[in-house]
Amino acid sequence: MRRVLCSPWLISGASLAIGVGVGAALTQQRSASSSSNSNGLLLRLPIIPIPTVSAKSELTPYHQGQLTPSKSTAAMKYGFPSLSNIKSRESYVTAYDPRCRTAAWVIEQLTPEALSGPSDRKLCDFKEDDTVHVYHRSTNGDYKGSGFDRGHLAAAANHKWSQKAMDDTFYLSNVAPQNPHLNQNAWNNLEKYCRSLTKQYQNVFVCSGPLYLPKQELDGKMYVKYQVIGKNHVAVPTHFFKVVILENRRGEVELRSYVMPNMPVDEKIPLERFLVPIESIERASGLLFVPNILKRTNSLQAITAGGQ
Amino acid sequence: MRRVLCSPWLISGASLAIGVGVGAALTQQRSASSSSNSNGLLLRLPIIPIPTVSAKSELTPYHQGQLTPSKSTAAMKYGFPSLSNIKSRESYVTAYDPRCRTAAWVIEQLTPEALSGPSDRKLCDFKEDDTVHVYHRSTNGDYKGSGFDRGHLAAAANHKWSQKAMDDTFYLSNVAPQNPHLNQNAWNNLEKYCRSLTKQYQNVFVCSGPLYLPKQELDGKMYVKYQVIGKNHVAVPTHFFKVVILENRRGEVELRSYVMPNMPVDEKIPLERFLVPIESIERASGLLFVPNILKRTNSLQAITAGGQ
Repeated sequence: MRRVLCSPWLISGASLAIGVGVGAALTQQRSASSSSNSNGLLLRLPIIPIPTVSAKSELTPYHQGQLTPSKSTAAMKYGFPSLSNIKSRESYVTAYDPRCRTAAWVIEQLTPEALSGPSDRKLCDFKEDDTVHVYHRSTNGDYKGSGFDRGHLAAAANHKWSQKAMDDTFYLSNVAPQNPHLNQNAWNNLEKYCRSLTKQYQNVFVCSGPLYLPKQELDGKMYVKYQVIGKNHVAVPTHFFKVVILENRRGEVELRSYVMPNMPVDEKIPLERFLVPIESIERASGLLFVPNILKRTNSLQAITAGGQ
Repeated sequence: MRRVLCSPWLISGASLAIGVGVGAALTQQRSASSSSNSNGLLLRLPIIPIPTVSAKSELTPYHQGQLTPSKSTAAMKYGFPSLSNIKSRESYVTAYDPRCRTAAWVIEQLTPEALSGPSDRKLCDFKEDDTVHVYHRSTNGDYKGSGFDRGHLAAAANHKWSQKAMDDTFYLSNVAPQNPHLNQNAWNNLEKYCRSLTKQYQNVFVCSGPLYLPKQELDGKMYVKYQVIGKNHVAVPTHFFKVVILENRRGEVELRSYVMPNMPVDEKIPLERFLVPIESIERASGLLFVPNILKRTNSLQAITAGGQ
């Protein structure tokens, strides 16, 4: 079943939260998806106010000292304590989350050409990202003995075209603590599925990242709770997301967004069972995908359930 | 007792973590501070690699489409899903944390002139920040019945000089869920103390924000756990920080950094007991203060214990 993004249940969709694992939320969302199908409603999409954060007007002038001094710019004498930590690598672009010591998101473009090549994973070693301040950087030592895999966000096998591109996926800033069973089975299958989409679609963009989802406890209140590992307190995500943006040859865009809990997931469960409304990822992660996509296309379909 | 920043215990200082409340960490840090006094060691400060995230080279070109297309810039066709969300207001500059629905930090400059004026707090109402996307915005409804105050980060009483400046402190993006007792007593006293510093110092800069500190549980592992309130899941910080940057008339800079737990705090405890090494805030928050300050001065003292 396909659904355009402006389907009412999606716009009014609940925040992504967990009952026991992701099950409850998925169930809730999937049952919601049984409501009206509303293809063609794209033009009726409500105008959502998008923050007008342009790099030019909001970021650059302060850093370059070009703004006319005022009360609030004077307060910036000692600079911003954070930037958005965008890093551009051979194989991906990422935004680092210095508090959690992992990426906030990693975007890659998958192409048939990039999926094959001479690169050898055995030549790659996980390595610290020394562009991250030592206070906010994860190390191999943090993972050692933790029981968690160093789970790639941009997958190594997506970038066989160049040894450097594959090497770059081994920066620990492209990695998050991941349950080994998940990493080696269901998540790996999702990565393989993404690669397979390059056969059908003109362009395949994949954005992966961690989630820290709240859960109701016995006192009836909602809590976010996640483990931190190692002396650098690397956050262990409760879940992972993968947002897949697909362009067909007619320039139409499809969006598929997946969430898996950071725990063993039976690989027999069909991948489509992990589809969630993009809104739920946008709400939970603090990120926005759809407004950016809508700047580029007026033909967007969000696929939230069922097969092709 | 005053201590320069390069004191060995500070450079090697432990991450800020909580045993029961902030007590354990504070105790640990204060006992560490009894080691060698090392005034004058500033020139021996180790060179810490600072991430070279310049707005010009790392942010602007992608957004403005000026970079030569490459593998990784092609991956950015649909834009970045996050920016650092810097907002400049009449009375402060802030970076919004869209995942937690609060500010990551708020910086203000306090001056004797700004502390007095005709502004009337009774004319102010807490209001949604419509520059924040509706998915990531907190509302008054989220706080209602939660048991938490809408705790100002930039304090209203710091900006009596203009009604607009005071009004701006009532944006819910300048607010975080705060224990009412803390808000109305110890934290309020810390705010008053900051205002009093304008009498002694040429320039007073104050940066306030939330912390989400890990705590060891019975299984021996470390966890970050915090409540979220309302239908927008506004994060309740476990602690709050205040970093105070003080310039005297000789241009020397002093740094005082405080952490209070988000729980009732006996206001009889002297404020200096809540001083912590700046490194511990930098590690826990994912923010950096010292590298920016060191670009502006070669005379920095971090005050980590004791009185004037």
